[in-house]
Amino acid sequence: MKIAVVGCGAVGSFYGAKLARAGHETHFLLRSDYEAVGRNGVCIRSVWGDFSVQLKAAQQADEIGISDLVLIGLKTTANSEFARMVPPLVGQGTAVVTLQNGLGNEEQLAQILPTDQILGGLCFVCLNRVAPGIIHHIAHGQIILGEFAGYPQPRTHELASTFRKAGVPCSVSDNLARAQWEKLTWNIPFNGLGVAAAAGWEAVKSGQVTPGTPLGPCLTTDRLLESERWSGLVRGLMLEVVEAAKAVGCELPQGIIENQIERTLSMGAYKASTLLSFARGRPLELESLFMEPLRRAQHAGAVVPILHRLCEVLSQLERDAMRSQKD
Amino acid sequence: MKIAVVGCGAVGSFYGAKLARAGHETHFLLRSDYEAVGRNGVCIRSVWGDFSVQLKAAQQADEIGISDLVLIGLKTTANSEFARMVPPLVGQGTAVVTLQNGLGNEEQLAQILPTDQILGGLCFVCLNRVAPGIIHHIAHGQIILGEFAGYPQPRTHELASTFRKAGVPCSVSDNLARAQWEKLTWNIPFNGLGVAAAAGWEAVKSGQVTPGTPLGPCLTTDRLLESERWSGLVRGLMLEVVEAAKAVGCELPQGIIENQIERTLSMGAYKASTLLSFARGRPLELESLFMEPLRRAQHAGAVVPILHRLCEVLSQLERDAMRSQKD
Repeated sequence: MKIAVVGCGAVGSFYGAKLARAGHETHFLLRSDYEAVGRNGVCIRSVWGDFSVQLKAAQQADEIGISDLVLIGLKTTANSEFARMVPPLVGQGTAVVTLQNGLGNEEQLAQILPTDQILGGLCFVCLNRVAPGIIHHIAHGQIILGEFAGYPQPRTHELASTFRKAGVPCSVSDNLARAQWEKLTWNIPFNGLGVAAAAGWEAVKSGQVTPGTPLGPCLTTDRLLESERWSGLVRGLMLEVVEAAKAVGCELPQGIIENQIERTLSMGAYKASTLLSFARGRPLELESLFMEPLRRAQHAGAVVPILHRLCEVLSQLERDAMRSQKD
Repeated sequence: MKIAVVGCGAVGSFYGAKLARAGHETHFLLRSDYEAVGRNGVCIRSVWGDFSVQLKAAQQADEIGISDLVLIGLKTTANSEFARMVPPLVGQGTAVVTLQNGLGNEEQLAQILPTDQILGGLCFVCLNRVAPGIIHHIAHGQIILGEFAGYPQPRTHELASTFRKAGVPCSVSDNLARAQWEKLTWNIPFNGLGVAAAAGWEAVKSGQVTPGTPLGPCLTTDRLLESERWSGLVRGLMLEVVEAAKAVGCELPQGIIENQIERTLSMGAYKASTLLSFARGRPLELESLFMEPLRRAQHAGAVVPILHRLCEVLSQLERDAMRSQKD
C-alpha cells in the first residue's frame, strides 16, 4: 500500500513508522524535520519495542503523488495548509484519514475532497516527539476509525486490518461523531482545565483572566481530581459535554463520566498534551478541541456555561502567550 | 423496511417480533404455526418486557415476495428447504441473514444466492418456544452480524443500527468465521458433552455407545463443570476448538477458555439448547454444530480426538433416538 503521511509530529511519525515497518511504501511530507528524517529515518522508542525505519521524505506533495492512504497528523492549527498539501496525494481510490484532535477537521477536508474519501481516526496514545525524527511512545496506541459520511465502507475495515497487521490495535466505529464526543469528555476537562488552572481558580470560575496576574502552574490529572473544587469542575464539564453530545444526536454510554474518572485516577500524575504545548509556548489547538465543540453545543441548544467560561480563559491565555512571545 | 422471517421457531419469532414492533413491515413464512400466528400474532414474554405483535403470516414465499431483509431462523436440519423458501424473497438489494447455529449455513445459501448478499448473525440469547407463537425470552439477546464474503458493507452497519433501534444489542464483526469459532468454543463442549453424557462417561471416552445400555441424564453446565473428569473434557474440547480455529486461520482471543469457563460458572445450572432438543426427541443440528467443525478441523490438519469421539457418540445417540421414535 502506498501511504503518505502529512504532518510528521509525534502522531503522524509514530503511525507512519509502524506502517512503514510493516512493509508499506511510506512517504513523509515534511517541513522543518525534512533534513533529519530524510537522512536518518524515524526512530521510535516504544513501550511496544524500539525500532528505526528509513522512509521516503518529501517537501512537496507532488513529489509523492497519488497514494492509497493519506494520514493527516498536522496540528489542527495548521489546517489552512490542507488545500496546498492534500490534493496532490488524492486520487479516486484514496482514503484520507485525519488523526487530528477534536472536531471540524473532516469538515475542513470536505471543502477540498469528496466526503466519501474522508475518515477520522481517533488516537488513544501517549507520544512525545523528543527531537526531529525521534518519537517516544509512552503508552497505549489504539486507533478508532470512522467514516466521515455514512456507514463504514469495506475499505475502512480493510484499513483497520492493515493497522492491526502493523501492530496497531485498531477498530471501526459506525459513528465517528459519537466516538469523537466520547473522547472529548476526557480531552475538554483534562486538557482544558489543566491549562486554565494556570490562570487560577477565580479566573476559571468567572471566565475572566485579570490582566497582569502572574500565572500559576498547570495541573496534571491527579491534581485536578484530588482537589474538591477542581474535580467538581471536571465532572461539571464532562456533564456538559455529555449533554452537548446528546443535543447534537450522539447518545454517550451510561456511566461514561464515572468510567473516565476511574480510568484517569489509574493514570497517576498525567500531563495532558495541551499542558505540554502550553509549557512550550506552542499553539493550543483551541479551535478543534474547545471552540468547535462549544459552537456545536450552543447551536444545538445545549446549556454549557462551564465550557463557555473555559473557552474564554483559554483564548485569553493563548492571546497573552502569543503577545509575550512577540514582545 | 420489508422483512421476511423464514423459520419461525424461537429465534426467528423473537427477532422478527422485535423488528415488527419497531414498525417494520414483517412477514413470517410458517408451516405448522401458520394458523396460530396468523390469528394471534406473536407473544413475547421477555426479560426486556412482554409484548405482542400482529404479523403478516404466509405459507409460501411468493406470497411475501422480494424483501429488503430475509432473516433465516430455520433449524439447520431443514436447510434443504433453502432452495424452495428463500429465492422468491430475494432481489438485487436484499440482505439475507442466517441466524442459525454453527458452520456451513452461509455456504449452503451461497449455492442459491450471490455471496455478497449473504450474512451471518450470531445470536447470544436464551429463548424457549413454549407454544405456537408464544416465545419465552429468558436472558441475553445480542446479535453479532458478519459478512459471509469480504469486509462488512455499509448496509451491514445499517442493519446493526436497525436491530439496535428495535431494542436488540447488535454489533458488526469484520470476521464472521472467527466469531463463529469463538461461539463454538462454548457450544461444542456444553451442548455436545451435555447430551453425550447421557450415554455415560465410558462411551464419551471411547467414542462408542454400547447398544442396549440405558441412557443416563444429560448434564447441565454446572454439572459438567463441577465434575473433575467432565470439566477436564470441557477444557480439552475447548482447546481443540481453539486449535481447529487457528488451523483454519482464525486466531481466537487469549484467555478465551478461562473466560468461557468463568462466564459459564456464573450461569448456574444452565441447560444448553441441544439438551432441550434431545429431551424432546427433536433433531440435534449435529451437522452444523459438530460435524462441519470436525470436517474443517481435520481438513486443516488440526488434531481433534475428543471432538471426533464426541461426534461419534452424538451421531449414535441421534440414530438410536430416531430408530426408537420409529419403533
